[in-house]
Amino acid sequence: MIIDCHGHYTTAPKQLTTFRDQQIAGIKDKSQRPKSLDLGITDDEIRASLEGAQLKFQRERGTDVTIFSPRASGMAHHIGDEEIGSQWAQVCNDLIARVCGLYPQNFVGVCQLPQVPGVAPKNCVAELERCITELGFVGCNLNPDPSGGYWKDPPLTDKYWYPIYEKMVELDVPAMVHVSSSCNPAFHATGAHYINGDTTAFMQITADLFKDFPTLKFIIPHGGGAVPYHWGRYRGLAQDLKRPPLAQHLMRNVFFDTCVYHYPGIELLTKVIAVDNILFASEMVGAVKGIDPETGYHFDDTQRRHPRARTGPPGLHLFLAS
Amino acid sequence: MIIDCHGHYTTAPKQLTTFRDQQIAGIKDKSQRPKSLDLGITDDEIRASLEGAQLKFQRERGTDVTIFSPRASGMAHHIGDEEIGSQWAQVCNDLIARVCGLYPQNFVGVCQLPQVPGVAPKNCVAELERCITELGFVGCNLNPDPSGGYWKDPPLTDKYWYPIYEKMVELDVPAMVHVSSSCNPAFHATGAHYINGDTTAFMQITADLFKDFPTLKFIIPHGGGAVPYHWGRYRGLAQDLKRPPLAQHLMRNVFFDTCVYHYPGIELLTKVIAVDNILFASEMVGAVKGIDPETGYHFDDTQRRHPRARTGPPGLHLFLAS
Repeated sequence: MIIDCHGHYTTAPKQLTTFRDQQIAGIKDKSQRPKSLDLGITDDEIRASLEGAQLKFQRERGTDVTIFSPRASGMAHHIGDEEIGSQWAQVCNDLIARVCGLYPQNFVGVCQLPQVPGVAPKNCVAELERCITELGFVGCNLNPDPSGGYWKDPPLTDKYWYPIYEKMVELDVPAMVHVSSSCNPAFHATGAHYINGDTTAFMQITADLFKDFPTLKFIIPHGGGAVPYHWGRYRGLAQDLKRPPLAQHLMRNVFFDTCVYHYPGIELLTKVIAVDNILFASEMVGAVKGIDPETGYHFDDTQRRHPRARTGPPGLHLFLAS
Repeated sequence: MIIDCHGHYTTAPKQLTTFRDQQIAGIKDKSQRPKSLDLGITDDEIRASLEGAQLKFQRERGTDVTIFSPRASGMAHHIGDEEIGSQWAQVCNDLIARVCGLYPQNFVGVCQLPQVPGVAPKNCVAELERCITELGFVGCNLNPDPSGGYWKDPPLTDKYWYPIYEKMVELDVPAMVHVSSSCNPAFHATGAHYINGDTTAFMQITADLFKDFPTLKFIIPHGGGAVPYHWGRYRGLAQDLKRPPLAQHLMRNVFFDTCVYHYPGIELLTKVIAVDNILFASEMVGAVKGIDPETGYHFDDTQRRHPRARTGPPGLHLFLAS
């Protein structure tokens, strides 16, 4: 079975956007707020949103299950207050639960948290618990920068974050450390902010955190940002900082996904990171939608099991063996 | 001849730090300001600061010349005002000029600019011109984030930056796009901020800039941040954004250095980036100082021409041929 650990519901029906627009309009004018948490989306609309997209690609590419969460850039934790964030997480997560209910063979849920910039994620504990225990989800997306590109919250090693870690450990679920949209014009969302978020989070957690939480698990998406490419730098920095070797210090707790959209990158990832710490992923339908003219495959087709792929370079499926 | 395009004067005599400390103390109390721009550093002190460090490594590793600039994290453009920044750039650059004067075979100068967060770099034009025409320097370090980790200045494609580009083009000198220290606790300086700076700057300049400045040249240091590892993502994003293919769009203007501290990273870099766009560099003595226990070589020994290296993996010196 091939599990894609990183998919977002980027194709959700338009009513979800309408709800969000009403939330945003309601910040200034309360009368504009959504009247109900019922989005009015039918099962058929959900099916239609997936059949021509995520499900089509699962079938074409030969993957079996996608670990599925709300659209990452849609989380936008920098917008609104705790109440708005809480409602927004709830409707997004409930929609994912409906997807998983309609296609229990194809999707397993991961939740969005109602994070708020500058607010310790104590307020996220209840929604995490609800999603895991009531909706049957298996993890959460944790945004290390709820400010959306200004990085105003403390590093992930700060006790500020501990309430959510405690609940994750209690429930035995991992977090994918994933930023949301960038409202800083310096950072292109998928071309800079996402990758920087991964790199930044990894460097933060090379400090002591897993002493306090030996079973806490983080997935660093997008192939670990810049980290595997600069693995020598990170090994060297750990050594200069008198920390234990990375493989010993982090590798029970930190995992990288395979959202790297060309073969030399996948090859590097599988060379420098132990196979047990690599999780197959494609993030489809996501950041990069086109077909690579150099290969004839979609950039985000990190799987390539269909017949033409047999002529591809060896080693590509190494990580699928685990 | 092997030219290392990326070295900083990280070992400058302590009087430079004293001067800076006085500048910083002088922000609150003018009486603490430095009394003179003469640092009182002797030629022998400069020689001593280099003989056991950069010069020793040049000899041991078999490189010939280092393109040498002030310490990157020392630039700290977020501290003080235009006057302080201007003085600081001047003394740092004058010190580099003395290094180059003492060792004209070993060092060629690159200047620090007196950038100030939120101030368009018009004020940097005179110092750039002085360094190139009077001190014989060959380029500048351009900080895309003078705020030191808060990214408050506009993207590098903004007309805000054009005055310095105009002068660079007129003088026909490149810039290394290099951030300075991070005052944002989210970003470890050399483990996150530097690499993020490279990734961010690259993504910014994939928008149109070189139409306006066809001969402008940028070096993206630290192996291009995350960019070569995610080259498929960047090619795909360019395609989604209806921009020309990267190789056609950027490769007369953008160069990557080889400050990647392990072989798989160097191998990837040389696979995905054309050799004409790769510049040899080590950034010694810099971010990572130790010896890699996996190889027995210094992490930042990106050269490895001495006898033991002959047993190293093939392909490592590919980029040296250009």
